[in-house]
Amino acid sequence: MKRVVIIGMGFGGIRAARTLAQKGLDVVLVDRNNYHLFQPLLYQVATAGLEQESIAYPVRAMARGWTGTRFQLAEVTGVDFEARQVVTDNGTIPYDYLVIGAGSVTNYFGLKSVEQHAFDLKELVDAERLRNHILTAFERAVVEPDPAKRRALMTFVIVGGGPTGVEFAGALIELVRYVLTKDYPELSVQAARVVLVEAFDRLLAAMPAELQGYTLEKLRGMGVEVLLNARVVDAGPERVTLHDGAVIPAHTLFWSAGVKAAPLAATLGVEQNPGGRIAVEPDLTLPGHPDVYVVGDMAWLEQDGAPLPMVAPVAMQMGIHAGKSILAREQGAPAPPFRYHDKGSMATIGRSAAVASAFGMNLRGYAAWIAWLLLHLYYLIGFRNRIVVMLNWIWYYWFHERQVRLITERETPGNGCTR
Amino acid sequence: MKRVVIIGMGFGGIRAARTLAQKGLDVVLVDRNNYHLFQPLLYQVATAGLEQESIAYPVRAMARGWTGTRFQLAEVTGVDFEARQVVTDNGTIPYDYLVIGAGSVTNYFGLKSVEQHAFDLKELVDAERLRNHILTAFERAVVEPDPAKRRALMTFVIVGGGPTGVEFAGALIELVRYVLTKDYPELSVQAARVVLVEAFDRLLAAMPAELQGYTLEKLRGMGVEVLLNARVVDAGPERVTLHDGAVIPAHTLFWSAGVKAAPLAATLGVEQNPGGRIAVEPDLTLPGHPDVYVVGDMAWLEQDGAPLPMVAPVAMQMGIHAGKSILAREQGAPAPPFRYHDKGSMATIGRSAAVASAFGMNLRGYAAWIAWLLLHLYYLIGFRNRIVVMLNWIWYYWFHERQVRLITERETPGNGCTR
Repeated sequence: MKRVVIIGMGFGGIRAARTLAQKGLDVVLVDRNNYHLFQPLLYQVATAGLEQESIAYPVRAMARGWTGTRFQLAEVTGVDFEARQVVTDNGTIPYDYLVIGAGSVTNYFGLKSVEQHAFDLKELVDAERLRNHILTAFERAVVEPDPAKRRALMTFVIVGGGPTGVEFAGALIELVRYVLTKDYPELSVQAARVVLVEAFDRLLAAMPAELQGYTLEKLRGMGVEVLLNARVVDAGPERVTLHDGAVIPAHTLFWSAGVKAAPLAATLGVEQNPGGRIAVEPDLTLPGHPDVYVVGDMAWLEQDGAPLPMVAPVAMQMGIHAGKSILAREQGAPAPPFRYHDKGSMATIGRSAAVASAFGMNLRGYAAWIAWLLLHLYYLIGFRNRIVVMLNWIWYYWFHERQVRLITERETPGNGCTR
Repeated sequence: MKRVVIIGMGFGGIRAARTLAQKGLDVVLVDRNNYHLFQPLLYQVATAGLEQESIAYPVRAMARGWTGTRFQLAEVTGVDFEARQVVTDNGTIPYDYLVIGAGSVTNYFGLKSVEQHAFDLKELVDAERLRNHILTAFERAVVEPDPAKRRALMTFVIVGGGPTGVEFAGALIELVRYVLTKDYPELSVQAARVVLVEAFDRLLAAMPAELQGYTLEKLRGMGVEVLLNARVVDAGPERVTLHDGAVIPAHTLFWSAGVKAAPLAATLGVEQNPGGRIAVEPDLTLPGHPDVYVVGDMAWLEQDGAPLPMVAPVAMQMGIHAGKSILAREQGAPAPPFRYHDKGSMATIGRSAAVASAFGMNLRGYAAWIAWLLLHLYYLIGFRNRIVVMLNWIWYYWFHERQVRLITERETPGNGCTR
């Protein structure tokens, strides 16, 4: 029985696994976490809106229904193409077919000081730590006598006007204005600042101009300071410096201005394109390695003259394609080239406010917001998770309340793990 | 306006706060965590049954409704009785009245090796870390070729046959038998061992003999190995040694064999009784300090010839009493002595199985279990928390499923924080 090893249980990996399961193949799933993480909602965990557990789903819970599929908790350190085996921190795993979907990490573009002081949102722990940091900043502000320092503690700089930056900015300003004002009567919370810094001259670059304008207007109306054509070039624990030398006193810097292929990509000894991504053949296989597929953020494939974006829908379609190709080849059928079908994109801004561009339609406001909620509930894995998430959303909508205002980890200078 | 400072937002502290709020006093709440933790359900977080967030409730969310009440996040390091101020890692806080309810910590009775290798359940992070450890042990067992080592990875030793030990043992064996068997088809999970070690000749010493017998019978029927008249004297990362020299190969040791007063008690410069507890006057005040009250686990008060137990009901009644005494004194009325009204005790063993002894009645089985569920939901703070917890319980009851099977923190040798 031929073995397929799938590296990474992200959007691409689990789709490939689901496609390959119960087809008479020996499927081995490998991830360094024992769960699939629904990254699109990490920002809601970071803004006290959701329990971290509600956006993660155990791989073994999925694999239960997939006979012939096994999971192994391990960190993949490389691939030995000659010996046809995956090398992990926990031994090697031979393969006949390999699907690599290790995803991406935050790209700080070499800005060392920023990387050192900024928060990002790629893993569950990032979201919990950011939430702890935000709430701790307010607790520190309460006992801070110096008004300037107090203001800096309540100033949050967000870099990157893509969906993550926009969604986080909106969720954060609402947390401050609706929830924390009630928690901190001793603070003039209205003095808190949420600054969104975008290097380009517009937000949500992938969206139609009409929706970009709506998003900008809406965010500013909510109280977010949006700086366009601006770049963060340096950072310290209590300040952020822009390209023009302007300094923003701020204790919190959130970076969502770019991602790059996971470090694993560099270990494969193949050519890497911008962002460390791996150029793949039209059928998603690695050049020179027809049995190795690369899917998701790690894969670089140009379509209609531009590389496919590093987003979940691309990863999902690639994962399914890789799975189907392997099944086809096992039946002696030819594997067709991959083609991405863009179903559109969407982003939520705040309560009853979102933008969506799909099938040539542009939605905004309440309708887009409902569409966003339903779509995310649909793609969220685990029925119970859906109920808990929906419960939290209803709660927030009705009571303007976010319950997960917990500092679960104490911070010490250096923001190391202080448990 | 006179100021009351309350140290510790446990069962005693929040009851005192609730009693003193909105009575024209300046009430300052101090805790090193920004939430009240419902400790009785920590074991369900540790056994993947509940999200950690669902058993914690932000102090500021409570204090919102308590005008004149303020919260300060700080670690109390001592009390300056002469200057009448509380000393914290974050400055000092003057008081006119002081209520100390800093609770307790685990008591290892000087067993250094045990303290080094054992897990306990006092804080939220303890439960998450223990859950991560249990699930990681099974993941390691999957890739462990040596049968003996595999068995040790799946062996869990629990010390202490009190309510915590009994409830954790029952919840753990059910997690293994009902849930993990489905997650790990490659393991003979039935080989997993849950060993409950009790130094006394019976479980639940505070319960009537009839219920003790039922509990022992029930636990053994569920597959828990109960060792009575046995003591753990030494431990290593992969073994536990008993008083008679017997060695149990086990990767997980859970200690619930005793608690002692929080370290703060030792800094007060007053006489400490066994367990570091502070002997208080009949009105709960500190001898020689009529304006300082000590409530909960830290307080040592004998009633009917025996010291009051270190349990939540005592803490709650003491907290309310301290609050009422202060209010009475402010109105020039005399403060009556404290008297604990024992409403009984209960412990859950497993699905549809619990024991309860209250008002001279002995309940066991399904009825006691329902009573246990309702009582815990009632005392759990936060309506949304109650819904989430109930949802999880219903889920588990119907589907034999516990969703929070997440390893949120990777372990490295030494079990340090590896985030």
